[in-house]
This record gives sequence, structure tokens and C-alpha cells, in this order.
Amino acid sequence: MLSRAEERLINALQQRKGRAEHGRFLAEGVRVVEEALASGDLDFAVISPSVEDNARGGALAAELERRGLVRRVSEVELNKLAGTDTPQGVLVVAHTPVHELEELKARDGDKLLLLDGVQDPGNFGTLVRAADALGVRAVIALPGTVDPWNPKSVRSAAGSTFHLPVIQADVPSAAAWLGANGFTLYAGDARGAAVRDVTFAGRAALVVGNEGAGLSDAVRSLNPTTVAIPMRGRAESLNVGVAAGILLYLLTERSHG
Amino acid sequence: MLSRAEERLINALQQRKGRAEHGRFLAEGVRVVEEALASGDLDFAVISPSVEDNARGGALAAELERRGLVRRVSEVELNKLAGTDTPQGVLVVAHTPVHELEELKARDGDKLLLLDGVQDPGNFGTLVRAADALGVRAVIALPGTVDPWNPKSVRSAAGSTFHLPVIQADVPSAAAWLGANGFTLYAGDARGAAVRDVTFAGRAALVVGNEGAGLSDAVRSLNPTTVAIPMRGRAESLNVGVAAGILLYLLTERSHG
Repeated sequence: MLSRAEERLINALQQRKGRAEHGRFLAEGVRVVEEALASGDLDFAVISPSVEDNARGGALAAELERRGLVRRVSEVELNKLAGTDTPQGVLVVAHTPVHELEELKARDGDKLLLLDGVQDPGNFGTLVRAADALGVRAVIALPGTVDPWNPKSVRSAAGSTFHLPVIQADVPSAAAWLGANGFTLYAGDARGAAVRDVTFAGRAALVVGNEGAGLSDAVRSLNPTTVAIPMRGRAESLNVGVAAGILLYLLTERSHG
Repeated sequence: MLSRAEERLINALQQRKGRAEHGRFLAEGVRVVEEALASGDLDFAVISPSVEDNARGGALAAELERRGLVRRVSEVELNKLAGTDTPQGVLVVAHTPVHELEELKARDGDKLLLLDGVQDPGNFGTLVRAADALGVRAVIALPGTVDPWNPKSVRSAAGSTFHLPVIQADVPSAAAWLGANGFTLYAGDARGAAVRDVTFAGRAALVVGNEGAGLSDAVRSLNPTTVAIPMRGRAESLNVGVAAGILLYLLTERSHG
């Protein structure tokens, strides 16, 4: 049984304000909850019968049960509590990992991803997942970027937000840290140098702007080195996830030459 | 005014069967309709007041009007007729472009994209748009792939389906054509050769499988050359659009060395 206080907590965690107040967030779906369980502190789990629909969900429910974390509710109740469309019969309340720029000790050849006003949780998650897969060291979420701990952001990152440090920082702090640690900042821009000619040597950071408006004035004023993916056909541009994926691949691959 | 026959036609075009019977499809949204107008034959356009909400939409409406194509309806009616969530006040009924493998004359260094059961219209459109932007010659949609002329596929391709040939073919026909024209077939696979070591020289085709199940047995039996994007972090995999985008970039870029 879920207590009234627990229900109120879950509802509060749907909002950014509630997440900040409680230092907790919601993780939903079998794969994401598996990662949350492996990586962090959980307060409790809410499950409904459909989690047992497949073996992987059943095993997860059994493990949550073994740890004494489970509150059982009906399918309808779980779907009402969830912040994503398909919670797959499971959600957990977890402690929000807090990472600060100051604790990030830069290493030789480190690559970073900065998100400058990326607003769609699906794009956010795709980029964090790609950064994790390709070997980026950390993600810095600048102001105007969707909350990394929004249930939809968490879901679309498929667990990557739990093991890759996601650091929230303002532009002056991020710029100061990058400068002090010798990072070169790159940004995709059609007028930049063709990316095939760029080596991304040493410590390098890629900044990705808002889906519609591109980079903020604050980031533009840092004069990032611009790099272009040549458009050889008739399409005006690439989808933001595809463009950033290509740049992230080149950023991380060339340093392993 | 929209006639009853026109309304019935639009409703029929929401279904694959209706599109096949009538040889027509629906294009929705300002940018996509601009491209449809520039590239193909239109039967008529349906517009509602919100198309005039911005200058670009207003100019498009004026041009459609000049050509005598416009049927005016209310906002509510247009949204009811549309097959996407945000038609932006405009949809058109257009002739479906039909491309056949036989009419595609292969040229030196041609790059192709094959879609083997890509089912999500958003992924389909993202990939067609990326193929267009990066200079791929044509897209071959194999069985099990979402209908290229589904309103959501058309919308997410942002006009690229109108200028890049999208050819529907079965696996034996596609394999025979690729073989006769000297194409090497590549597929992304974690057990393949690291993609950094692959040159994609000459005529080359990349095949992308279903979002969950990967390549079909029919395509696997063609023994494509497998290439891997190294996973350096903890994420198990990349989103299908990001992975295919990276491979498409490398496929098209290396031939321009």
C-alpha cells in the first residue's frame, strides 16, 4: 500500500520545484529502474501487475521486493502517478545525484558535452545517451535546458543520466571552468570549418543549442570554434539529435587515433 | 468550400490502402507543403485561418490561392482532417511520386540507404532527411518499413521525400539490383569491424534494421559487411537515428576524400 504522504511526494516530483525541494526524482520503466537500482539510493518503488508481463520486469520486481521497497497499486493507479506514457508497471522515487563543476577533475583528452537550451526531453535523453555511449566524460546543462530529472528526460536517457555526471551550471561558471582547465569549445554551425578537417585534439567540449533558436547570446559571446557538417543534398539541415550525434562521434573518435 | 468527395478522399488517404488506390497522399505543415508545391503535382489545398499566423504561412496561402487550389475550412475542421498533430493551418492532396529500381541509373561513388523494417514514422523521416542532407542518392524502403507516404512519415521527412527518390522494393529485387550494379552492402552491428577502419569506397549501400528486432532474416542472409560504432562508455547502444546518422555521415564523407 502506498501511503498518502508517498502519493503526495510522487505528485510533487512531477514538477521541477518539487524535485528541487525534496532532492528526489522519479524513474520509470523497467530498464531505467534497473539502472536506478544499480546506481543510486531509492526511497521506495511503486509497482502494478503489468511489471510481471515479461521475465525482466518480473526479476526487477522480485529484487525490489527483496529490498523491502515495494508498494503495490493497480494498473490504473500507477498510470495516474506516472510522468511518462508507458511506465511498464514500475516507478521509483530516487535521490537526485548532485554533481558540481568543482568536483570534476579534468583528465588528458577529456571530451565534454554542453547543452545550451535543449528543450525537448527526448532530444535531451538521446544526447545524454549518445554522450555516454561514445565516451564523453560529463554533460553540462546550461540555463534554458530541460530539467535532467524531469521523468521524460530520465526515461529517454535510458539510464545514462545515472552514470554520466550531468552538471547544471550557468554560462559564466562553465566558461571559467573550461578556460581554467584548458578546454577548447566547439559548436556546430553551417558557416564553420568543415568538420572533416577538425582534429578535436586535447581537451575539447561540444556545445549544442536550442532546437529552434540555436545558441544563446551568452554562449555565442564565448566565440566557440565553429564546425560544419557539409550539406551535400537539398535538405536545409539535419535533425538536432543526428547532427549532434555525428559531431559527438567525431569529437570522441579522433582523440582515440 | 470543401466538397463531400474531397473530404472522403482526404479521409481515405489516412490509410495505406486509400493512398495506393488513389495514387495520392497528404502533405501537412507549412514547410512540407512548400516543398510539395515546388516538387510535385497537387490536386488541391485545404487551409484554415491559422496558416496566416506567420508571414511564411501567409505567403504560402497566397501562392496556393493564385494557383486556384484553395479550399477554406475552420480550424476545427482542418485539425479533424489532418493526419498529424500540428498541420499549421494547411494540408494538400498531392500525387504520389513513384520511383522504380529499374529507372535508377547507378553512378560512380553512389551511396544508398536501405530501410529494413524501420517502423516509426519519426525515425523514417529523420533518416530520409539525413540521407538527403548528406548526399545519399536514393532510399530503398524494404518490406516491413512504415509507408513513406503516411502523413507522419511525410511530415517528419520535412520535404526530403519529395526530392530524394524513395523506392519501395522487396529484398530479392533490391539484392539483385545492388549486385548487378556493383554495390557493397554495409550494416551496423556491434560485432562488426570498427567503422573508423572502413573506407566505404566505390558504390556503397547502408542498411538500417527495425528499431527493436534489427535486421530481417532476408537481409541477414545477404551477408552485409558489418561495421561497429565503438561503445566506449556504459550505455548499451545508441538511438537508431543517431547510430544511422553517424554511419551515413561516414558513408558519404569518405567518398569525398
